[in-house]
Amino acid sequence: MSDPVLPVVIIGGGGHASVLVDILRQQNRDILAVISPDPIDSRSVFNGILHLLSDDDIHQFETNAVRLINGIGMLPGNTIRKHVANKFEAMGYRFDSVIASSAIVSPFAQLADGVQLFPGSIVQAGSQLGTHSIVNSAALIEHDCVLGNFNHVAPRATLCGQVECHDSVFIGAGATVIQSISIGTGAIIGAGAAVTKDLSVGHICLPAQSVQQSIEPKVMP
Amino acid sequence: MSDPVLPVVIIGGGGHASVLVDILRQQNRDILAVISPDPIDSRSVFNGILHLLSDDDIHQFETNAVRLINGIGMLPGNTIRKHVANKFEAMGYRFDSVIASSAIVSPFAQLADGVQLFPGSIVQAGSQLGTHSIVNSAALIEHDCVLGNFNHVAPRATLCGQVECHDSVFIGAGATVIQSISIGTGAIIGAGAAVTKDLSVGHICLPAQSVQQSIEPKVMP
Amino acid sequence: MSDPVLPVVIIGGGGHASVLVDILRQQNRDILAVISPDPIDSRSVFNGILHLLSDDDIHQFETNAVRLINGIGMLPGNTIRKHVANKFEAMGYRFDSVIASSAIVSPFAQLADGVQLFPGSIVQAGSQLGTHSIVNSAALIEHDCVLGNFNHVAPRATLCGQVECHDSVFIGAGATVIQSISIGTGAIIGAGAAVTKDLSVGHICLPAQSVQQSIEPKVMP
Repeated sequence: MSDPVLPVVIIGGGGHASVLVDILRQQNRDILAVISPDPIDSRSVFNGILHLLSDDDIHQFETNAVRLINGIGMLPGNTIRKHVANKFEAMGYRFDSVIASSAIVSPFAQLADGVQLFPGSIVQAGSQLGTHSIVNSAALIEHDCVLGNFNHVAPRATLCGQVECHDSVFIGAGATVIQSISIGTGAIIGAGAAVTKDLSVGHICLPAQSVQQSIEPKVMP
Repeated sequence: MSDPVLPVVIIGGGGHASVLVDILRQQNRDILAVISPDPIDSRSVFNGILHLLSDDDIHQFETNAVRLINGIGMLPGNTIRKHVANKFEAMGYRFDSVIASSAIVSPFAQLADGVQLFPGSIVQAGSQLGTHSIVNSAALIEHDCVLGNFNHVAPRATLCGQVECHDSVFIGAGATVIQSISIGTGAIIGAGAAVTKDLSVGHICLPAQSVQQSIEPKVMP
Repeated sequence: MSDPVLPVVIIGGGGHASVLVDILRQQNRDILAVISPDPIDSRSVFNGILHLLSDDDIHQFETNAVRLINGIGMLPGNTIRKHVANKFEAMGYRFDSVIASSAIVSPFAQLADGVQLFPGSIVQAGSQLGTHSIVNSAALIEHDCVLGNFNHVAPRATLCGQVECHDSVFIGAGATVIQSISIGTGAIIGAGAAVTKDLSVGHICLPAQSVQQSIEPKVMP
């Protein structure tokens, strides 16, 4: 990226935003403000950062003088992250990618603007990640995967080689997708699922159910 | 930690202790002795370290001149780790935390004394870990988790954001706990389980069973 | 390793080889050629490296002037990796190990020639890995494991402490094997399986099946 490093404004003030701010602080990025309608002072990582309450407050920053960080997480069925991206981009603002210093990223991977790679994540050679996609903490994208826009690969999820995900796919925490699988737009993979067959648009893959029971004496005396 | 770095004595000489000693050697910590009633010479990582056989041998070290390292692991239903901690603390000794150099720890996380973070583990912003809790190799504690005392998060287990674990919780290897789950005191999560509902005191969560069978010719010619 | 660092020739030009070349480039290793009967130009990581088509092309390099890298991956039931190793070793060539700079390897682990440790993998104290075994990306080998020759521990798989794998074992992506388990020669563990019992020669362990279904409106509005 030959672009100059600009100061940033964070959109959102919840848990997802808190990890991003933690990453950016460690990289000594200049964080001008967090925009969130909700209080942010319960998380110390936000201490000392200007808190703005309304999306319209963005207008105090010139579009070319700042970059935005999309601090809205993505859970299944929640499209706020995408709406936020569209809204601010329509105003002329641009989103920066965030790549944790501990992420392992092949120089032969291609990352679109706005991609977020969290601590301990890995992206291997030949993979392509679409705009605003999240590779959460310790998640793994093996070689030659192609991910669309607005994907969320949740913490510790694994995509083996040559997996293809279309747009707005959600891969749950700890899930495993074997090599060469294709996943349709908007599809959802539950936490801990092992995916061994293609998954179509509008489908969900649920893991086999864990079972809860009382602990027997032999297990826990 | 403004405390001076003191030499350490390891309590226990098994597999858990061996990983701790490996970490501490790489950090050039001064290891005075390993206390274990069992032989330790099958593991080369202990080579050259004084081997003491009895817990009472600790008295040759002044309480303020050393720190202890709790080298007893924790499996479900096994409370030796806690008894060891209580016994030596009652004598006036203090336990040091051990944080592997390869662990990724947010400066906005809070770690009590005696916490152990193993190689490749991750602890994110806003999380709090109680005393003597273990975050084993490559385990992941996401943002805003609260763990009690004497938890063991086994290798590669994942706690998503805002998970709450009370005391003496055991999270099995490779298990996944989704966000905002609460886990009661002494509860056990089996290896590989995906936890999507709160787990009460005195309960266990078992993963769906894997199945073993003969390999068919088409799979393995 | 007191051996001099020799230039290398890669045998194979697919996805497995591409990750190896990526690792070796980052370590500034001199890569003389990729030998593969198939085209390799779809992967940019191979750009600028001499492409040879036939195994016999190896003879343009003296056996003592190069080291080979086994770029053939290993899937269940596929023995090409082993045949390649045997063929070139019979000609007098030797294979180098490949250890990614981001791998975490205990100095108290023992690695045979030809072992491959991929990015983010971890091998703990007291473990022994047999020749040509692969510890793929982010896979974890805990303390005191003993792995035979030609094992493949797929991406993000976890072996807890003191697991024993005989030769040609395949551990699927994201699988978890609890402590002190024994796995017979040629056995296969499916992606995402949790292994809590010994697995015999000629057996496979399949994970409980994930289920695919249409997304209900309440999940994805």
